[in-house]
Amino acid sequence: MPERLVVIGGDAGGMGAASQARRGRPDLEIVALERGGRTSWSACGIPYLVGGEVDRLDDLVVRTPDEFRDRLHIDVRLHHEAVAVDLDRRQVEVRDHAASRTFRLGFDQLLFGTGARPRRPDLPGVERECVFGVQTLDDAEALLAHARDSGGSRVVVVGGGYIGLEMAEAFTQRGARVVVVEREPQVMGTLDADMGALVSEAMRRHDIDVRCGTATLGFDEGVVRTEAGDLPADLVVLGLGVVANSELAGDAGIALGAGGAVAVDERQATGAEGVWAAGDCCESTHLVTGAKVHVPLGTVANKQARVAGTNIAGGDARFPGVVGTAAVKLCGTEIARTGLSEKEATRAGLDHTAVRVESTTRAGYLREAPSLTVKMVAERGSGRLLGAQIVGGNGSAKRIDVVATALHAGMTAHQATQLDLAYAPPFSPVWDPVLIAARKAGEQAAAGGVRR
Amino acid sequence: MPERLVVIGGDAGGMGAASQARRGRPDLEIVALERGGRTSWSACGIPYLVGGEVDRLDDLVVRTPDEFRDRLHIDVRLHHEAVAVDLDRRQVEVRDHAASRTFRLGFDQLLFGTGARPRRPDLPGVERECVFGVQTLDDAEALLAHARDSGGSRVVVVGGGYIGLEMAEAFTQRGARVVVVEREPQVMGTLDADMGALVSEAMRRHDIDVRCGTATLGFDEGVVRTEAGDLPADLVVLGLGVVANSELAGDAGIALGAGGAVAVDERQATGAEGVWAAGDCCESTHLVTGAKVHVPLGTVANKQARVAGTNIAGGDARFPGVVGTAAVKLCGTEIARTGLSEKEATRAGLDHTAVRVESTTRAGYLREAPSLTVKMVAERGSGRLLGAQIVGGNGSAKRIDVVATALHAGMTAHQATQLDLAYAPPFSPVWDPVLIAARKAGEQAAAGGVRR
Repeated sequence: MPERLVVIGGDAGGMGAASQARRGRPDLEIVALERGGRTSWSACGIPYLVGGEVDRLDDLVVRTPDEFRDRLHIDVRLHHEAVAVDLDRRQVEVRDHAASRTFRLGFDQLLFGTGARPRRPDLPGVERECVFGVQTLDDAEALLAHARDSGGSRVVVVGGGYIGLEMAEAFTQRGARVVVVEREPQVMGTLDADMGALVSEAMRRHDIDVRCGTATLGFDEGVVRTEAGDLPADLVVLGLGVVANSELAGDAGIALGAGGAVAVDERQATGAEGVWAAGDCCESTHLVTGAKVHVPLGTVANKQARVAGTNIAGGDARFPGVVGTAAVKLCGTEIARTGLSEKEATRAGLDHTAVRVESTTRAGYLREAPSLTVKMVAERGSGRLLGAQIVGGNGSAKRIDVVATALHAGMTAHQATQLDLAYAPPFSPVWDPVLIAARKAGEQAAAGGVRR
Repeated sequence: MPERLVVIGGDAGGMGAASQARRGRPDLEIVALERGGRTSWSACGIPYLVGGEVDRLDDLVVRTPDEFRDRLHIDVRLHHEAVAVDLDRRQVEVRDHAASRTFRLGFDQLLFGTGARPRRPDLPGVERECVFGVQTLDDAEALLAHARDSGGSRVVVVGGGYIGLEMAEAFTQRGARVVVVEREPQVMGTLDADMGALVSEAMRRHDIDVRCGTATLGFDEGVVRTEAGDLPADLVVLGLGVVANSELAGDAGIALGAGGAVAVDERQATGAEGVWAAGDCCESTHLVTGAKVHVPLGTVANKQARVAGTNIAGGDARFPGVVGTAAVKLCGTEIARTGLSEKEATRAGLDHTAVRVESTTRAGYLREAPSLTVKMVAERGSGRLLGAQIVGGNGSAKRIDVVATALHAGMTAHQATQLDLAYAPPFSPVWDPVLIAARKAGEQAAAGGVRR
């Protein structure tokens, strides 16, 4: 009997690992269980589908079940949900929803790629059918159908995270009146407050009603109840982030880690022999702090999946970790961050300094020269780069990659000032804004500037 | 008597160093000699002035002589040309063109910021007034006047370097018929031939007549003579690169180095005590090969100038060197390179491998997803990254900065595959093209793929 790998979850974590395992082990039997009706989709594309920049829902499918079956000989089973894992007997209990039957499937190796789900607040009415999380294409299908049926002209987004704000913009592009309700004093809590304020301003310029510091109290027929009164809503989108789908692993006795996600080592191995995890369901190491973190992003999921798949196939790959890079485009404004924000540096107990630089993404003398703001955080004394945030016009966001790469390399701000970055008038001022920020941060960190 | 710094040259190298020296030494007497009529201009902006994306010539002046005088107390002397340097007496012989007199000016410290000049081929008729190099704003002024007077409807660019090609596009935007004549089989010799071909294709799509493998023989009234026949021309632009203005230093007995540029150490010191150089007139160290190189680019000049100025003021700054990054936008196509091309790797005697990746700059499912090509070069065995070249649509060029930063850090291609780069559908596919290229390069370098 050939060795069998069972993969739980049909998106990036699961199918990426399955594909990579297949490349290394043509002989392996691979069964992939997916409780929904699709494989390998881009959840990040959903706001663009809603906003009209993607033509059809199926354009968001990277690879179909048939492609996995035909090209990679992976036995993909749709509408099959893993409901329990028995590590002693090395079996998964599977519910086949289509056939309404439950069976047990043995495994030699097992990979959790169970992903994450939108956080649903514990509020009255949260289970109403007009309240949508956005994670799977099935979610997207239901949401679009509801938007069509209800008119979808009044939309409330609860929570100011990335996806919530992208959905807010998408509905504005469909002609809806959109209100964003955020309990905290700023949207996009992964940024510092000063940078988050730039995002709120950009959204307000695009007629999105952003209400910070406003708690949501519940949901009722056609209305969202908030501290500051009722908001009419045909449709509600939850933008409160996601939680790892780690219960299945936890119930099987596998250790959970950061943010309740499945604990893994650098090889994506869980604490149980021959049991792996990859993607949004598991944790990562933050390379700036060394701490374990839960970063449910597609880029991370794909990298982890390749590492897990290589190791499942008998190789020795390692995923060193993340530096906390993320980006989003909202209302013509590009937003990106990497490493530690000021508040994260404070939380990590790091003595730090922060600088802000205003510049342009192209040479200032060109007729079109979008402005941008770069904030950079460095450790006092050592001068080590800790992180950066960028908010600005066209050409802003991907500049964060320089800082992300410098963080991987453990550079100081001073070292970063010497980087030989690309310059031509359509791409940058002669001093790239990232270099200017690094110079200021390096000077301030060395001078032992006022602690912020 | 206060200590006196004499700076020769009023652009980035000279004035950048003078400004930085002033910050560190409020007491220093600083005299800056500029043989032309302006200070601190952006030569890189000239094609955009010609093409109409910059309104006025003076928009390209970063800082005027009066600003240097008033804000930084730098004694800027326009139309003053240093004609000889006497290191023994520590004097510069200065020709004041306005007053038609020559005098000697003593110095304690001296900085060469003499820049570079367009290479003029030794061909009959090259001194005709319709043949223009593009380096100073005075050049630009003369060129624009000639274009107006002559009609400038038939332009020939001799040489397919960055500036030549930018000027070709600029004249096309003014409605001229433009021919580029390049002796080598490809334009943009800093790229490998396969990537250079993508540039030629882009220019031809924009109706620029690019003729490679065609030697220019000379210039005559209204005509450029080439191997392949005569080309009518109201105006000729030289795009053959630049040569360092290092004769003044060389004649004074200062050692010259790479490409005939002034030899300097990491502190921008020449071989003579208290004599410095910065900018296009001097050499740099290539951090990938360790060799001295002449890289006459504004980014490098500005960095060197700050280092020189800091040291002149008694500090201790170092300019480690360059990795050979450059970028240009031509006819809607973005082009960038860093590190070593394949041909440079071969020349450096490095056993290497190269990969090419075709991808998009945004998520492929978005309605607009410009394509790009990434070529990456890595050392066989060690897997060390050696360089990359990128040609593609909007959002391509600045991706090279990730590779440039990785080169500074001495990363292997495999290490680069793990970089936590920014992703959102408007900015990148979930696997950034740079990461895909790094993965392929890493695999091929480790596998000892066929030497290319």
